[in-house]
Amino acid sequence: MLLVDDLRNALREFARERDWEKFHTPKNLSMALAVEVAELLEHFQWLEGSESLELDAEKLAKVQEEIGDVLIYLVRLSDRLGVDPVYAARQKLEQNKKKYPADVVRGSAKKYHEYGM
Amino acid sequence: MLLVDDLRNALREFARERDWEKFHTPKNLSMALAVEVAELLEHFQWLEGSESLELDAEKLAKVQEEIGDVLIYLVRLSDRLGVDPVYAARQKLEQNKKKYPADVVRGSAKKYHEYGM
Amino acid sequence: MLLVDDLRNALREFARERDWEKFHTPKNLSMALAVEVAELLEHFQWLEGSESLELDAEKLAKVQEEIGDVLIYLVRLSDRLGVDPVYAARQKLEQNKKKYPADVVRGSAKKYHEYGM
Amino acid sequence: MLLVDDLRNALREFARERDWEKFHTPKNLSMALAVEVAELLEHFQWLEGSESLELDAEKLAKVQEEIGDVLIYLVRLSDRLGVDPVYAARQKLEQNKKKYPADVVRGSAKKYHEYGM
Repeated sequence: MLLVDDLRNALREFARERDWEKFHTPKNLSMALAVEVAELLEHFQWLEGSESLELDAEKLAKVQEEIGDVLIYLVRLSDRLGVDPVYAARQKLEQNKKKYPADVVRGSAKKYHEYGM
Repeated sequence: MLLVDDLRNALREFARERDWEKFHTPKNLSMALAVEVAELLEHFQWLEGSESLELDAEKLAKVQEEIGDVLIYLVRLSDRLGVDPVYAARQKLEQNKKKYPADVVRGSAKKYHEYGM
Repeated sequence: MLLVDDLRNALREFARERDWEKFHTPKNLSMALAVEVAELLEHFQWLEGSESLELDAEKLAKVQEEIGDVLIYLVRLSDRLGVDPVYAARQKLEQNKKKYPADVVRGSAKKYHEYGM
Repeated sequence: MLLVDDLRNALREFARERDWEKFHTPKNLSMALAVEVAELLEHFQWLEGSESLELDAEKLAKVQEEIGDVLIYLVRLSDRLGVDPVYAARQKLEQNKKKYPADVVRGSAKKYHEYGM
């Protein structure tokens, strides 16, 4: 099974072996994360929503690479801050469950984008 | 242990219970991901790199929440595309190891930002 | 008539009067620009493309404010780099005209997103 | 003198001649804008703030191109929404002047990043 902890350790070693730790401030890593997310956006910018669900194999392979880059920088940033990203996501999900109770949200005429997620 | 697979399943259920799946196209999710990453950037934009390593507890708690949001959307996007994000990151890391051999990169006078990661 | 040059001068004075010039490195300003663009994205993230053309007055007013913020940081960043943004855009447009000749592009079956703009 | 209005008209014609108007929804254009801003970020991500003020001629030329791209999409997005971006920026600047009075802000010990701009 592939674990985020193993990825974190591998990234730590990768940076140390190359003497790149000095570049890896949270500020710089947040910028690198934004750059990689934009490379994801680029694949979807001119597609209809429905088209973005039906990528061909070649495009999907590229998108998968960008997803890998995004997770790399997110895990590296989290490590530099001492944050466990999976724990952070679970905590946030629990908050969201309380904030948007399923029965209220589903029954409501309120637009989704006023809820956010 | 907290696993990305469990998070993926929990997010899947969260969306289904609220009838939000229709909004969760890869296109829309990539935008939501970009929005959350920018909320991370916002915490670091006026700080020096060194300051971004020394956040106080209050700010760190906020940053942790944003990291949670980023991972939520990244995992949700990956799920909608049938991609395993941790596998994608491991694959990318292996590529990077070949592309930037530690002994060459460390010994080189070439600037880090010409390598990227 | 409202000119970008006047805006540039007004922003220069605004920063000087508040002693904020020290924060306005191109690096920091590029981050602030990304944050403001994401606030624009946020308004559109869950909308269909066609819906994004038909904003109500309240939402349009908010979007207009975000556009103002984006231009403020773009002009400020350009000023700190000694770049004229309108000249840069005109130059880029001339390049794009050559790169994507109207008669070729229009007649082609090639997808728009393979051209980019 | 180079005017934003002229740029807007040229971009309108550019899109019409190529039959690209159908791709230019505000939603799509906001994504394209985010992609171009990230290409700007990319030039600055590993630099110190002070280094970002001292780009060499080659890098500055590339950054200038990205600034051109950002303005192109911002003007095109504004046009599709019927917004005057320079007017929007002037309005926002007037608001900011009231929100952050120079004498209060300058004299204050409050951190700049708690003000934002």
